[in-house]
Order: sequence, then C-alpha cells, then structure tokens
Amino acid sequence: MSAKPILYSYFRSSCSWRVRIALAIKGVEYEYKAVHLVKDGGEQHTEDFKSKNPMQQVPAFVVDDQTLVQSLPIIEYIEEVYPGPSLLPKDPIQRAKVRGLAEVINSGIQPLQNLTVLQYLNEDTKKDWAKHWIHNGFISLEKMLKETSGKYCFGDEVSMADVCLPPQVFNANRFQVDMNEFPVISRINEELSKIEAFRVAEPKRQPDCPDDLK
Amino acid sequence: MSAKPILYSYFRSSCSWRVRIALAIKGVEYEYKAVHLVKDGGEQHTEDFKSKNPMQQVPAFVVDDQTLVQSLPIIEYIEEVYPGPSLLPKDPIQRAKVRGLAEVINSGIQPLQNLTVLQYLNEDTKKDWAKHWIHNGFISLEKMLKETSGKYCFGDEVSMADVCLPPQVFNANRFQVDMNEFPVISRINEELSKIEAFRVAEPKRQPDCPDDLK
Repeated sequence: MSAKPILYSYFRSSCSWRVRIALAIKGVEYEYKAVHLVKDGGEQHTEDFKSKNPMQQVPAFVVDDQTLVQSLPIIEYIEEVYPGPSLLPKDPIQRAKVRGLAEVINSGIQPLQNLTVLQYLNEDTKKDWAKHWIHNGFISLEKMLKETSGKYCFGDEVSMADVCLPPQVFNANRFQVDMNEFPVISRINEELSKIEAFRVAEPKRQPDCPDDLK
Repeated sequence: MSAKPILYSYFRSSCSWRVRIALAIKGVEYEYKAVHLVKDGGEQHTEDFKSKNPMQQVPAFVVDDQTLVQSLPIIEYIEEVYPGPSLLPKDPIQRAKVRGLAEVINSGIQPLQNLTVLQYLNEDTKKDWAKHWIHNGFISLEKMLKETSGKYCFGDEVSMADVCLPPQVFNANRFQVDMNEFPVISRINEELSKIEAFRVAEPKRQPDCPDDLK
C-alpha cells in the first residue's frame, strides 16, 4: 500500500467510532478527515465531499484511491489486511456468533436511531423513538451476551462485537436508556473503557470534537 | 457436521430469503422449519420457539446444535464452510466493496421497513415510511451499482450483494416504489431471476407460502 489511508469521520458518528477502534487495535496509522454531519445542512452533502464519496456518508475509508463504505465491511477489510490482534476467532461457528452480535447493533439498533432517521421524525417524537429502539435491541443483545460473554462480548478476547458496543452504549446514555436493566452490557462496556485502543477512539479525543464537549 | 442443518424461516421474510439463496447457490441440503411471524401475534414469540432461539427472530440457522442468527453472519458462515461457488471475491478491496453493497441493504434499508418497525408505526403512516426509506436507500445503491456492476452487482460473478437484492426489490414493489427510477437495480434483479438458485428461494416456492399467494 502507498500513502496512509484516510478515514472520513465525524467525532460523534457511532459507525466512524467503530472504525477508529478497529484501526487503533491494529495500530494502523491514518489521516483523519473530519466531515461535520450537522453544520450548514451537513458537509457530507457538499460537492467537494460527494466527489470523494458519492454515498455522502461517514465513515468512508480511502485506501489506494479506493473508497470503502459501511463500517463492518471496512472493519472486515482492516481485519483481513493488517497484522495485529485478530478481531474474529478462527472457528467458523464462533466467527458467526461474533458477527451476529455485531450485526444486532449494526443492523438491529443503530439504523433506527441514526441522524438521518431522527431528522426525518418530528421533534417531539424523535427522542422516544431512539430510546425505544435502543432499549428493544439491548434486551436481545443482553440475552445473547449472557450466553457468549467472558471478560468481553465473546469470551475473553476483544472482537468485532466489542468494537460496536461502546458507541451504542454512548447513544443509549444520550437517549436516557436505563442501563441498570443491562448489567452484562454495562460490565463489558466498563471493561472496554480501560483499553487504550478504545480510549483513543472516543469522540472527545477526536480533532473535530468541540472544546465544550471535551 | 452431523445431521442436516435447520433453517428457521418465514416465506416472506427478506432476511430468511437471503439465506435461502445462499444455501441454494452452495447446494446445501437443509431442513426448512416455518415460523409464522404474524399468526396469533407471531410464532417467533412462543415458548417453544424461544427455547430454540431466544432472539425470537428469523432467520435462525441451527448447525451442530449451535444457533446462528442475523442473515449476513449466517451467509458468511455458509461461505466459509461449504464448497461451491464463492460469494465473495478473493481481493480484500473487492470483498469490502461487495460487503459494502450488501450492508447498504442489510443495515441501510431493510431495518427501517421490517415487520417490527412497521408494527410500531401508525397504520396510516407505515406504507409511506417504508416507501420513503426503500426509495432513499435505492438512490445510494443505484449510484454504487453504476460503479461496481457488470452482469450482477459486482462484476460478472454472483456475490453476497446479489443475495440481498431480490428480497429488497420485492419489498420495494410491495410498497410501490417506482422502480423505473432505478434501471441498474432493475436490470440486475431481472438477471438474477433467471438463476435457478434464486428461483427456488422465492417466497412462493416455500412450503409455508399460502396457496393464494403462489
């Protein structure tokens, strides 16, 4: 590979956050390019950004002049090409279980409470909507994690499932989901917050985080 | 592996449909167990089904007494363990692009118009809601496919992205999305409908499809 890869990111985008964690775990150096999703209607819709990523979304990961989109496919790519700790077990059944946990968040929860959907809802219903779907998804996730978790989401090794967890817990807190209902999720999230690769990926550590949110 | 794997499925569930296509492409024999998602409040919520799959959702794929959930992780498992035509290219960038296309449907469109979400919405808004989000997602998908497609979604080989396409087009038609806006999606869908593995996976060919819908 030639130059450093570029990550188009927004500090608070939970899907960008997942990719930042994966890159930090693997120790990949990359160029951070901030795309402000809210300012002036959203920089992702400008002609300049559209010329780089017609999908008008973050994260976008540019490597060898190729633009990759969607967080889990980007993370699968990172897993496949970079050395460092593996984000998936070797056994196919176990891999499917890790990916299943990741997808409960990626397709089961996050899409229902992302910015685009909330912007489409009425101002007075959007918070209840987000809270409802995160709560609903966490009921399933908590049950699954009771079966699969050790220290982390799947046994005692950090995996692709863990990469998705802290950003979703962050949003749960933002929308006032009562995390006391989810002791397993809470415990794992607490464990993950001790790991440096997870800490450097937090929104408040990103260059585009406003000072008043740090 | 011991006995035949079991697929818990519902004929019209688009995520079950994806798995049926993947199994047919690979030529995997499996036991079909129907779970009626609507009758009597939904068989997925019965104690009997919950004991098999606490997630109360289809598809669920049971192999060696292990239950796998979430369609794309199940399809990744099928890709990893069964011989037959590969659903992913070998090159990591190309794999990421195929997975990206699949995720635009899997996490970008389907979750917003699935049964659980539509049941939560008002009767008079649900159709417009589903139509809006499928239309919105297809605008992105059409743009991506203009770059990546050949005969199929990614070049001239059937891939994991194609597996997700026909079920989503079926739902688009169900919610009266004007498919004339999406010539590339329509053309690929037409191509895929000629392939036997795609035909046998259609809702009307499933044992739980009511006679009046065949």
